[in-house]
Amino acid sequence: MAAHLDFPTSNGKYAEMFDKGELALLPTKKYIVVTCMDAHVDIKLGDAHIICNASGSVKEALRSIVISQRLLGTHEVAVFHHTGCGMLLFSTDHLCTLVKDAEPENLTIGEAVNKIDFLEFGDLEESVKRDVKFLQENPLLLKETKVSGWIYDVATGRIKQVV
Amino acid sequence: MAAHLDFPTSNGKYAEMFDKGELALLPTKKYIVVTCMDAHVDIKLGDAHIICNASGSVKEALRSIVISQRLLGTHEVAVFHHTGCGMLLFSTDHLCTLVKDAEPENLTIGEAVNKIDFLEFGDLEESVKRDVKFLQENPLLLKETKVSGWIYDVATGRIKQVV
Repeated sequence: MAAHLDFPTSNGKYAEMFDKGELALLPTKKYIVVTCMDAHVDIKLGDAHIICNASGSVKEALRSIVISQRLLGTHEVAVFHHTGCGMLLFSTDHLCTLVKDAEPENLTIGEAVNKIDFLEFGDLEESVKRDVKFLQENPLLLKETKVSGWIYDVATGRIKQVV
Repeated sequence: MAAHLDFPTSNGKYAEMFDKGELALLPTKKYIVVTCMDAHVDIKLGDAHIICNASGSVKEALRSIVISQRLLGTHEVAVFHHTGCGMLLFSTDHLCTLVKDAEPENLTIGEAVNKIDFLEFGDLEESVKRDVKFLQENPLLLKETKVSGWIYDVATGRIKQVV
């Protein structure tokens, strides 16, 4: 059975317990958290805008950050990367080759995958600093934006501030 | 006090209760959920890769989806958009103008914002269908990928399958 077919059952139970009413369109705490798709920081619904993608990349998140700031009033960004992240284990070249080799006769795939920078990193602390710097220097962010960078330890649940 | 300064306190409490051990690098249920940064579907840590951005856009998420599929073994994608989404209320032109007008003499801003398609939509069901179609037709997704599309009702917590 397809995994997604579990959704209606689990959602039925969730909806029965649902007591949040309509979520506010604007996050109550005016900040954005950018984090990884597989290790989430524990934040209550409605507190912040939570952007999750592979590694917690601010480059992939730029469109969402601009929308959040300019239309929905956030003025702080916290970047979280985490220990044991898969992004430490591969390179864009390696992934492009893997994708092309899966269907060597399909030229469309090669063209499509070559357009993507997968934004891997070799050092966790450096990757957090790089992402914070990218935001601090980006003209699209509001000038008064506070940007902080954190590492989340998946073995203990603890966070450490890097920037 | 900056909002992010709350993190160490709330994280301290979280870490005391922490009992997940090290999260598996691979999600247990082999699927990806793409959803909005401000209205999250209730999924347990480790079940799936959860990608959150403004509106739950699969275009912004493409890099993460490719990494999830090719390196981490997922083969199903569920796209969730939600009622009351801010993306129903603006256009890319409107947002570009807003950003440029905030600093009319800064030409760097205009150049940077013109590069972004903010991927707004006028109809919720259509936007889910459009995103599902984008993935079904994208050469970078594994051929056997199942893609489904859902609407999450923020007033009731209930979900409805669209595709």
